[in-house]
Amino acid sequence: MNVPDGLLTTDAEALIDDPSIPLIVELIGGLEPARTFTLRALARGKSVVTANKALLAQHWSDLGRASMEKGGRLWFEASVGGGIPVIRALREGLAANRIQSIHGIINGTSNYIMTRMSEEGLEFETALRQAQEKGYAEADPTLDIEGGDAAHKLAILASLAFDTCVPLEKIYTEGITGIALMDIEIARELGYTIKLLAVAKAVGERVEARVHPTMIPDRHLLATVREAFNAVYIQGDAVGPTLFYGLGAGSLPTASAVVGDLMEMARRPQGGADPSPLPMEPEPSKEVVPMAEVSCPCYVRFMSPDRPGVLAAISGVLARHEISIASVIQKGRETDGTVPIVMMTHEAVEASVRGALAEIADLDVISAPPTLIRVEEERAAE
Amino acid sequence: MNVPDGLLTTDAEALIDDPSIPLIVELIGGLEPARTFTLRALARGKSVVTANKALLAQHWSDLGRASMEKGGRLWFEASVGGGIPVIRALREGLAANRIQSIHGIINGTSNYIMTRMSEEGLEFETALRQAQEKGYAEADPTLDIEGGDAAHKLAILASLAFDTCVPLEKIYTEGITGIALMDIEIARELGYTIKLLAVAKAVGERVEARVHPTMIPDRHLLATVREAFNAVYIQGDAVGPTLFYGLGAGSLPTASAVVGDLMEMARRPQGGADPSPLPMEPEPSKEVVPMAEVSCPCYVRFMSPDRPGVLAAISGVLARHEISIASVIQKGRETDGTVPIVMMTHEAVEASVRGALAEIADLDVISAPPTLIRVEEERAAE
Repeated sequence: MNVPDGLLTTDAEALIDDPSIPLIVELIGGLEPARTFTLRALARGKSVVTANKALLAQHWSDLGRASMEKGGRLWFEASVGGGIPVIRALREGLAANRIQSIHGIINGTSNYIMTRMSEEGLEFETALRQAQEKGYAEADPTLDIEGGDAAHKLAILASLAFDTCVPLEKIYTEGITGIALMDIEIARELGYTIKLLAVAKAVGERVEARVHPTMIPDRHLLATVREAFNAVYIQGDAVGPTLFYGLGAGSLPTASAVVGDLMEMARRPQGGADPSPLPMEPEPSKEVVPMAEVSCPCYVRFMSPDRPGVLAAISGVLARHEISIASVIQKGRETDGTVPIVMMTHEAVEASVRGALAEIADLDVISAPPTLIRVEEERAAE
Repeated sequence: MNVPDGLLTTDAEALIDDPSIPLIVELIGGLEPARTFTLRALARGKSVVTANKALLAQHWSDLGRASMEKGGRLWFEASVGGGIPVIRALREGLAANRIQSIHGIINGTSNYIMTRMSEEGLEFETALRQAQEKGYAEADPTLDIEGGDAAHKLAILASLAFDTCVPLEKIYTEGITGIALMDIEIARELGYTIKLLAVAKAVGERVEARVHPTMIPDRHLLATVREAFNAVYIQGDAVGPTLFYGLGAGSLPTASAVVGDLMEMARRPQGGADPSPLPMEPEPSKEVVPMAEVSCPCYVRFMSPDRPGVLAAISGVLARHEISIASVIQKGRETDGTVPIVMMTHEAVEASVRGALAEIADLDVISAPPTLIRVEEERAAE
């Protein structure tokens, strides 16, 4: 691309301080110096277009206030779901709704890995290496595979959806590194697919916000989202269930969102309102439900030598913690002299499940730490 | 709902002519008096929110001009896909893209009927009756099952996507009344699902726009869209493939879109720009490709007594029309002494296919009019 002489600069401050420039596009990523630059531009009344989900998730209130004070606007369609216009959907298209829930596959790297594991029977480490070779995962993949990136994006979506600031540190976050191929295979036999889901729900006055591997029924639309694709499933009280699907990363999808924001801003006269004001502070009434209080059906797997009494011991502990079992799968699927015992529970409170699993892990007959995968039964309305 | 005395009126003109009212919501449906009311409101500089796809598809240019002249804005999110914010996606979120193609399931009634036929083995008439009983189809279902409603919506989508006015009468339209249960079953054996699709594509400088029953691979996301749901699959040059899914009709989804438009308009200052100008006239360079020139792979089914020589006769005609056969399925599936002969062709020009089918229909050994279903092979990018 030929750029005329004198247009390119490495001096960001000079651009930010130039009064003839009404708008800054921030695509540096990371917290600093992106945060300083963005706040400085907003302090000068400039609008900012950004794809920086980490910055938004961690400095939402500061950015919102700075934008409010001088009237500069903050646009961030590219921060979640790449080119999928899901931010706009929440702020504008679905604005008439009370949002009931969001279920998102919003980290392409982990979805790619889960797809490879599920479709080709690769173990996690092999699938991760493949993702790195294909450029879907970075050399240090922590933020993707440990769920941090999805949590950043969920903080943004949930804040918009529930009109409150959902603080990043309140979002329970668990990545996909603990998912064994065996769990994917057993899930499939049970009619489920495992995805790294970002879940946010209105529960009474409060808000649930959590990121973890999740079993969803094969028939749910989200189960069909493969490879590095993203999708956000949003339920509103008027609109019902909706799905927004597309490529969640990559230079062109990101550019699609950034330029879309630029075009829309260019069409709005100076002084025009934001599509909707950003919720800047946590609403005290809209507390984030602590994970310990969240209730889900659960998949739990224990490894044990195939001996009489194991099942009785496990189910005894579960009963004492008031966890009711929906089904038990025990197969002669031996690994190192042990077999998996899988149970699907009815809805159970996280704290009880954790307590029961800790107790069961201490049983003599249990030979490896138990595996817990939460289940979302909600289907595409039919 | 309690509405204060004096707020309700049956005098539409009085509202439209009241200078204190900046905005009219038109939810009458049908062409008249909706057209007169809408033009009159726009002529008074008022903005109009409408769900009226028939009106938009048939009077797009007049409405666009009237809106341009006095600065009243036209909002119509509810006109396509119910509460799915797909109009907004095309006008704003994906505005940076050259749209390459749109594949839409945008008529809930026919999708409901196709789902019942496919999943329960109902014949068309039975499924239609069921749709009527459930309130998905009207007493006179013509507009839904003959494709007219989908064509209205496609005219709107294609005009926005390709930045030209795509005239309704240029859209080839074929409904689902000719689909036999047998075709759905054979398609399934071949790995396809039949849907009423609205298809629009940029083909060189020109535009394809057509509505007809279409075979799509089972793995395509659109194949998983069941019941009365709608979905629009949009490919852009930067964003890649995207999907927008939700309920395409019903009072609450429609209200979601109408109120969303109202809220956005309320947030924009008077004199603010439209999200994007409406393309008012057909761009001469963006001609709609006549259906006879459109090229598709095809599914063709012939009914014939199970006699030697039939296949040779049929394939001879196809060869003379330069239609190349990808596969042949001939099974002993007898109905009234005849068996179906099914062929999947490679890409073939519509005019040739029509010519060949007419010739084959005249063969002595053919006992019923041939069935033609076009195929879209494009998959969700993988």
